[in-house]
Amino acid sequence: MSVTLGFAASVAKGKLQPYTFERRTPREDDVSIDIKFCGVCHSDIHQVRDEWGGAIFPMVPGHEVAGIVSAVGSKVSKFKVGDHVGVGCFVDSCTTCSTRNVDLEQYMPGLVQTYNSVEADGVTPTMGGYSNHMVVKEGYVLSIPENLPLDAAAPLMCAGITLYSPLHHWKAGPGKKVAIIGMGGLGHMGVKIAHAMGAEVTVLSQSLSKQEDGLRFGAAHYYATNDPETFIKLENQFDLIINTVGAGIDLDAYLKLVKTDGTMVLIGVPEKPVALNAPSLIGARRTLAGSMIGSIKETQEMLDFCGKHNIVADIELIPIQSVNEAFDRVVKSDVRYRFVIDMASLKA
Amino acid sequence: MSVTLGFAASVAKGKLQPYTFERRTPREDDVSIDIKFCGVCHSDIHQVRDEWGGAIFPMVPGHEVAGIVSAVGSKVSKFKVGDHVGVGCFVDSCTTCSTRNVDLEQYMPGLVQTYNSVEADGVTPTMGGYSNHMVVKEGYVLSIPENLPLDAAAPLMCAGITLYSPLHHWKAGPGKKVAIIGMGGLGHMGVKIAHAMGAEVTVLSQSLSKQEDGLRFGAAHYYATNDPETFIKLENQFDLIINTVGAGIDLDAYLKLVKTDGTMVLIGVPEKPVALNAPSLIGARRTLAGSMIGSIKETQEMLDFCGKHNIVADIELIPIQSVNEAFDRVVKSDVRYRFVIDMASLKA
Repeated sequence: MSVTLGFAASVAKGKLQPYTFERRTPREDDVSIDIKFCGVCHSDIHQVRDEWGGAIFPMVPGHEVAGIVSAVGSKVSKFKVGDHVGVGCFVDSCTTCSTRNVDLEQYMPGLVQTYNSVEADGVTPTMGGYSNHMVVKEGYVLSIPENLPLDAAAPLMCAGITLYSPLHHWKAGPGKKVAIIGMGGLGHMGVKIAHAMGAEVTVLSQSLSKQEDGLRFGAAHYYATNDPETFIKLENQFDLIINTVGAGIDLDAYLKLVKTDGTMVLIGVPEKPVALNAPSLIGARRTLAGSMIGSIKETQEMLDFCGKHNIVADIELIPIQSVNEAFDRVVKSDVRYRFVIDMASLKA
Repeated sequence: MSVTLGFAASVAKGKLQPYTFERRTPREDDVSIDIKFCGVCHSDIHQVRDEWGGAIFPMVPGHEVAGIVSAVGSKVSKFKVGDHVGVGCFVDSCTTCSTRNVDLEQYMPGLVQTYNSVEADGVTPTMGGYSNHMVVKEGYVLSIPENLPLDAAAPLMCAGITLYSPLHHWKAGPGKKVAIIGMGGLGHMGVKIAHAMGAEVTVLSQSLSKQEDGLRFGAAHYYATNDPETFIKLENQFDLIINTVGAGIDLDAYLKLVKTDGTMVLIGVPEKPVALNAPSLIGARRTLAGSMIGSIKETQEMLDFCGKHNIVADIELIPIQSVNEAFDRVVKSDVRYRFVIDMASLKA
């Protein structure tokens, strides 16, 4: 066992505080990682506040982990000490069922999440990346291209793959018009990635306050959704719309912006059921879909793509002692565009 | 101009009564049709009762037309006198916009519906198939295979294509598990067509009262949705679910029956918005889609497919004098499985 320093919440809605715990003794197929940076995802907040139910405490959140390999087990072949690596939303999964065969393990019920979950033994709680050290099975460790700065690469592990996967699956690329609803931590990655894929990108944001950033990220167009004209002007325009907004939105209003045979993908999770008028789909053979992170294979593909195109998140680097304040700012959308914790701030 | 006999509603919710009107003088690209049979579609009732708004009266309903060519214009090349032909939900469309190029004219705003619509001149109301004679542009006339009985083939023009199109688009076939929700006029066509495509078909019906018919139509399995066990047993089972039911259903309960990357298609139009829990889609990259009839090209493809597989509707043949009673029975789902009007009953 190895002693690990981190920050944990001890009860639902509790403040994150320094916490010392033990990681498992590395096995022959394990990679030991010195965590350098960890992104702050909105879902960390939902889970610390037990807003999705069933939370396990004490909880060390964090699933946008970037670090450097400090040791490898005897059977590890893909990584060596000193490699830049990442860990995303899960650290184990069922390896026998059919979904695994098509690299969609993220949708399997047996997924072991990086934190707020239990290991394959069914007992040991998993602890996330708001800590200085991690032990992860080789098959769930990702290689971060050397040309990407580790701090700004950390958010690729969740925000990056959450956008890359639907953009890739629904074929964003040259000749395709793609809209991204919301330009926060998720949305700003979507703009960068969709642009790099060759799509013509439009941002649909509440106001024009972040327009300059949006164009810098690669958007060709930027519209305010608080202007009713937007919904008239853009009717039937898009091959693909990715909705990154969690709060309830008017689905039908956005679906009308999708072309015949186009798709709108939900990645943000509204807290309540949303209302849908079936004719919004039926009248133009539109599809409404959902997408959740990506497989390990696809996440590595995304990292290689980001390495090639020099894509990372725009971040605000913070010491871990500021994480509770950062949580409050994330809830108010007061961050451009992702908080990343500098783990050098974590002292014994 | 040619005098035509039919049955029309003169006001919203009015009874259908004998009505004499004029069809246009056939043009050089027109096909004149002696209507032999016309199916009774639930949407006829919605429109006669003006439940969708904007209805045009007097209204001669009917868009499941089967008949025999009585004359052709000088430029008509595909049809000759005596041919068995059908007319479906539309009789003209915009021929210039991009959608036409990919044979999806049914989703174009400029569609001219067979009735309750106005012709391309923007003035002349269209009159449907509850009549003895029709004049239709060659490009909107369908060829009915000679081996199919005309009466039972009539419902293929709407019910048939409404099911064939999504089954074909979402690739029902060998190795695919397809469920049909509701086994009425639409659903029973879905079972027959999906089975002929080679899919393993399951019917999800309120009760088991029509189970024997379902198996005869080609279903491999038949489940009652009033049994909560059905929703547990069939979780994550289907590649494709087609919902033919108009009344509001519990979308989330049915979406859970769809596999990862599977699709549920709405073809029935609920009167009110339906509630959707985004995680039902997000948790398994499911898609929810809508589909509406089919293009002329695809409708002809469907008719050829039905000819090859000897597929027609199961019908109750009625004289046109019984159509008002038939409407009431359709609303009560008291028909197995489609009323078809025998136009021989229409006398001057």
